[in-house]
Amino acid sequence: MTITVIGIGLIGGSMAISLKENGFADRIIGVDQSQDNLDKAVRRRLIDEDMDLESAIVESDIIVLSIPVDAMLQILPKVLDLVDDQVVIDVGSTKMELMKSVENHPKRKQYIGTHPMAGTEYSGPEAAIPNLFSKKTTVICDAKQSKKEVVDLVEKMYNSMEMKILHMDAESHDIHTAYISHISHISSFALALTVLEKEKDEKTILDLASSGFSSTVRLAKSSANMWVPVFQQNRDNVLDVLDEHINSLSKFRTLLIKKDFKKIHELIKQSNDIKRILNS
Amino acid sequence: MTITVIGIGLIGGSMAISLKENGFADRIIGVDQSQDNLDKAVRRRLIDEDMDLESAIVESDIIVLSIPVDAMLQILPKVLDLVDDQVVIDVGSTKMELMKSVENHPKRKQYIGTHPMAGTEYSGPEAAIPNLFSKKTTVICDAKQSKKEVVDLVEKMYNSMEMKILHMDAESHDIHTAYISHISHISSFALALTVLEKEKDEKTILDLASSGFSSTVRLAKSSANMWVPVFQQNRDNVLDVLDEHINSLSKFRTLLIKKDFKKIHELIKQSNDIKRILNS
Repeated sequence: MTITVIGIGLIGGSMAISLKENGFADRIIGVDQSQDNLDKAVRRRLIDEDMDLESAIVESDIIVLSIPVDAMLQILPKVLDLVDDQVVIDVGSTKMELMKSVENHPKRKQYIGTHPMAGTEYSGPEAAIPNLFSKKTTVICDAKQSKKEVVDLVEKMYNSMEMKILHMDAESHDIHTAYISHISHISSFALALTVLEKEKDEKTILDLASSGFSSTVRLAKSSANMWVPVFQQNRDNVLDVLDEHINSLSKFRTLLIKKDFKKIHELIKQSNDIKRILNS
Repeated sequence: MTITVIGIGLIGGSMAISLKENGFADRIIGVDQSQDNLDKAVRRRLIDEDMDLESAIVESDIIVLSIPVDAMLQILPKVLDLVDDQVVIDVGSTKMELMKSVENHPKRKQYIGTHPMAGTEYSGPEAAIPNLFSKKTTVICDAKQSKKEVVDLVEKMYNSMEMKILHMDAESHDIHTAYISHISHISSFALALTVLEKEKDEKTILDLASSGFSSTVRLAKSSANMWVPVFQQNRDNVLDVLDEHINSLSKFRTLLIKKDFKKIHELIKQSNDIKRILNS
């Protein structure tokens, strides 16, 4: 099995290592607009070789698109124009707009939208790591729009990476990821800004940064090039969740103003229920 | 050197192990209102023995108070009433109110307020771990209010734990911790509530929880009994920072509404500057 990965960054590079190491792929071809990234990927043995897009597609059984979601809108139709019976997937963080962009493409049934829910705050081929996906969940979207053989092969691929598969329509996917991923990023970016603003006057403040703080703002290291297009494509859902999150914070604010510490205690107890999820 | 630790939880228990293991203490006495905690602490070898408060103080060179900050206001004056020339420290997360509560105590100079900036989202003696404090920062507050020998001994103790020492007045401490610790907790509690509220309708949502989400809401597992008194004692500072954080989030909200993604890109780039701190 030959797999082409378009976009050899954190996600594409980590998939490349996983699929080669677990034996699902015999050969990984890398395609990337940055020759520097490709050279790094060859040196790190993330890919076996690099090629231009057209040649790579001819040689491949599966083509994985792992590029920022704005570029995805440009490249996916182009890839579908070029495929014959190859299987095409994307691994982007938003789905509605992308699915819509190819809904009438004659090769639509060769494509399936997926989203492996894993990542770190780093990016680029140097950030790629093995086992990033193991035991995590991947979403497969609107499987009925694809050929059965395509779905079967893609499920087999994710199974080889030891991922749990969850089927979902694109609309639900975009709502859920707004809650479970996109809002965490906005919350971290905003918290980092709040504290960095204060640091302008108080130079010592950040000597105190403890592991709790680091954990909460870790995602604020994430790449703007990757995340802005996600917020752009999932704007309406992100706005809904952001409103709800600001409401939750305002609830704490009102209770602090009223000195209603009994009710704050209740809210914290309720929020502790998150243990149920994080420990599972 | 005999050290009494009052409150054998995450912080007290971890200090007990560290100070015994590094040889600074020959003997650790535990005092706790829960006999169950004391039994666990003896079984886990966090302490050598348990005692009542009065007997423990007589036997000790240093007394460490590591109890929730509301209980601290009750117990610290009581401990100072009982000491002769023993050294007393607390390790609580707020300082202004506590310092004020003992400012006229005849034994004030035997006491020094400190705050080792380390912790996890867990609590109780089962959460105590060695090396929790190593390479972290501890704050020592208003050292001029204490005898020089007291300051020297406490610095020696924190040095033995490989902690970096930062001197600060109580007022600055409470402002800084509001930024660097207390707001992270409120942000996590609020985010957990936001997502748990949504989960009532959408059962599958939390199958998607990725490591990014887990990191951002990890602190929402924290104990209400410990944190409510912190917010109570540091209410004004926490309110200021919470207002600023809600403002930062509202900035993202406004830009999303206006679809000003260029400006969102700039904000994210600014927030990325947090790397400088988190990697140091």
